[in-house]
Amino acid sequence: MTSPQLGGLDEIVAEHDRAVRDHAALVARGLSLDLTRGKPSPRQLDLSDGLLTRLGAGDLRAADGTDCRNYGGLQGLPEIREIFSAALQVPAAQLVAGGNSSLAMMHDTVVHAMLGRLPGAERRWADEPRVAFLCPVPGYDRHFALCERFGIELIPVPMTPEGPDMDVVERLVREDAQIKGMWCVPKYSNPDGVCYGDETVRRLAAMPTAAPDFRIFWDNAYAVHHLTDTPVEIADILALCAEHGDPDRVFVFGSTSKITWAGAGVAFFGSSPANVAWLLANTGKQTIGPDKVNQLRHVRFLKDADGLAAHMRGHRDLIRPKFDAVGRILDKELGGTGFASWSNPAGGYFISLEVPDGCAREVVRRAAEAGIALTPAGATHPYGNDPRDRTIRIAPTYPELDELELAIEGLAVCVRMVATARLIEAASAG
Amino acid sequence: MTSPQLGGLDEIVAEHDRAVRDHAALVARGLSLDLTRGKPSPRQLDLSDGLLTRLGAGDLRAADGTDCRNYGGLQGLPEIREIFSAALQVPAAQLVAGGNSSLAMMHDTVVHAMLGRLPGAERRWADEPRVAFLCPVPGYDRHFALCERFGIELIPVPMTPEGPDMDVVERLVREDAQIKGMWCVPKYSNPDGVCYGDETVRRLAAMPTAAPDFRIFWDNAYAVHHLTDTPVEIADILALCAEHGDPDRVFVFGSTSKITWAGAGVAFFGSSPANVAWLLANTGKQTIGPDKVNQLRHVRFLKDADGLAAHMRGHRDLIRPKFDAVGRILDKELGGTGFASWSNPAGGYFISLEVPDGCAREVVRRAAEAGIALTPAGATHPYGNDPRDRTIRIAPTYPELDELELAIEGLAVCVRMVATARLIEAASAG
Repeated sequence: MTSPQLGGLDEIVAEHDRAVRDHAALVARGLSLDLTRGKPSPRQLDLSDGLLTRLGAGDLRAADGTDCRNYGGLQGLPEIREIFSAALQVPAAQLVAGGNSSLAMMHDTVVHAMLGRLPGAERRWADEPRVAFLCPVPGYDRHFALCERFGIELIPVPMTPEGPDMDVVERLVREDAQIKGMWCVPKYSNPDGVCYGDETVRRLAAMPTAAPDFRIFWDNAYAVHHLTDTPVEIADILALCAEHGDPDRVFVFGSTSKITWAGAGVAFFGSSPANVAWLLANTGKQTIGPDKVNQLRHVRFLKDADGLAAHMRGHRDLIRPKFDAVGRILDKELGGTGFASWSNPAGGYFISLEVPDGCAREVVRRAAEAGIALTPAGATHPYGNDPRDRTIRIAPTYPELDELELAIEGLAVCVRMVATARLIEAASAG
Repeated sequence: MTSPQLGGLDEIVAEHDRAVRDHAALVARGLSLDLTRGKPSPRQLDLSDGLLTRLGAGDLRAADGTDCRNYGGLQGLPEIREIFSAALQVPAAQLVAGGNSSLAMMHDTVVHAMLGRLPGAERRWADEPRVAFLCPVPGYDRHFALCERFGIELIPVPMTPEGPDMDVVERLVREDAQIKGMWCVPKYSNPDGVCYGDETVRRLAAMPTAAPDFRIFWDNAYAVHHLTDTPVEIADILALCAEHGDPDRVFVFGSTSKITWAGAGVAFFGSSPANVAWLLANTGKQTIGPDKVNQLRHVRFLKDADGLAAHMRGHRDLIRPKFDAVGRILDKELGGTGFASWSNPAGGYFISLEVPDGCAREVVRRAAEAGIALTPAGATHPYGNDPRDRTIRIAPTYPELDELELAIEGLAVCVRMVATARLIEAASAG
């Protein structure tokens, strides 16, 4: 680590002393701020309060006449699948609309692959000597936790500005037949905001894999969550997989959790006809159908793809100022110090802050002392192990703007304090 | 099979000819009637249309201040658990309120036991050489299908008017350590309406089991679904298991599927504190929480246990005439013929019709010819195999009364036709 702006040790010590005093003052304020999770704010949730009223008595039938109140309809309402088809890049006939949680659909898909044979698989994953998943890092802790719980080995793959390092990915999946899956958040990735380049997507679809039952878990959680006027479009992986002769390679996931109400939305699974048939055969033993009333409620509220886009502009108007504030404060407090770099995402829910190697845990600890709760350092890596201990995930959406500003100012103090301490240590060791 | 009312072969042949003519006339009518599934009728669903309106904007917080729209709250809202605590005989603190499907909670509980160690288990069920479940027969086809899908062996146990034959159950679980589970629908059982006697429940709680991780899957689906003014109360199995030193023995399930809207209700899991902690630890990897808005909607609509009971009286008023009609018609058409016997349940959703051995499939086939769809014969037994081929499940709730009457009259014709044919065959073989 170099710090070009601070000349000699004296200056670093002075800077450190200043940061220590700032931190003490911060602790004395007794803040209680939470940047841990990517939750919509109450004002964002308010945007969807129309869900409560758009569905009236006498309006409980789907377009095909189905009484949404009763059992049945395993694949979910056609009209809700139609609305999300373009955003998720999956034909409506190949989408499944489920309950309120795409994480549950991912979990259950892994379960079904563990306990029932996937199309193309030689055996159930539970009968494999070993099952491994590739995990681009930094990534999403709930993906990792889900796999860990089933004893699935997690293999980190470095991210690039264009997505996962495809040279590494291609080599690993070609050589190791026990690599059965890979996590991807292809658009406005959690946490670094990266959008996969077209060539990355093409290589993911085209690469030879040793496993005949390799699957990409394509968690397109932020498909319509743009922060700018120029929405990012990613390549259509489902079509590309079919084009390259492996139509069953990808499972697409999405949900309305960060579109309507986080806890009361609709989740989606999309894939090839064979994979959809496989999932529904398994789901048919699990449930008599999803909550179609809530799906119809979403249809009435969002109306169509244009309605969805308009609704998302409402979210952007609320959260864009928060992302801007984080960037502005980090730039003011840490810009040019060499103590940190951070992402400037064009969409999604997170900002990734990189601090000097070996500093992330300590920064998070110092922030906690000051009443600023951050996602645990390491959470963005499998097994909570960030080998360079440098990545911190910032979730700016939930707090009110003034609270967020306080929290980021405090976080910057902690970064200055910890980074200067490391420099001083290094100098005295040297 | 004896037919005391029909004297000689001539009379039987004449009765058969009459039945054949009646059946031909029935086929000619071109009916299309469906008695296959235990679905509430549209008028029953109408009883809950208040779900649409009871929750207003500004009323989206739970009693503890939780914003129900956002993520979180894995165990479900305390107030919905409170309402169902007495009915399910589980303390609210030991209830989990989930999504819209208790079948999904049963499925997922089996999955978690397959892929993660249950309290008291030596290993995951997936690592056992063999896993078997006891299945009182006749029973519920979806319970069986769920197990079959995971390769769990199903061992039938005969039912008595007091519940499963406990001499058989006690012997099997004492001798076979691979028997890990048992299905029970303890109140107004599917399909025969049996309510477990207190002594049956006590013996289930007290019996020694070879498996340290034996679990009773107590699907109390019809806990409040009374058809009479004297609600049946069953013994409190959770308390009895604790009393007999095996507090973790039972998983209780229930749902509002046949209380409010079949496809858009709330499901429950209840058990010992250790089992609840185990379930939530697993569920926490699967989802960020259930749909709390829908739970709050149910709280506002049902209000409390009294509101629940009053609401169920509305169902009774709609479906009791249907159960009565089935009994009346079967009695009129088949009473005293010796061709059939049937249950007269005091609650629940089904009537079980027993026809002479070897006749059930043929009766269902003949009914289908006449446009009357029945649950496939054998569905009430594991692997669809009713060894005596005699049990037919009648689901009277969904059709309108006049349709139901037509369907049961037609069914009686089919029973007469098939039963007389068997008698004639037997006579000519004799």
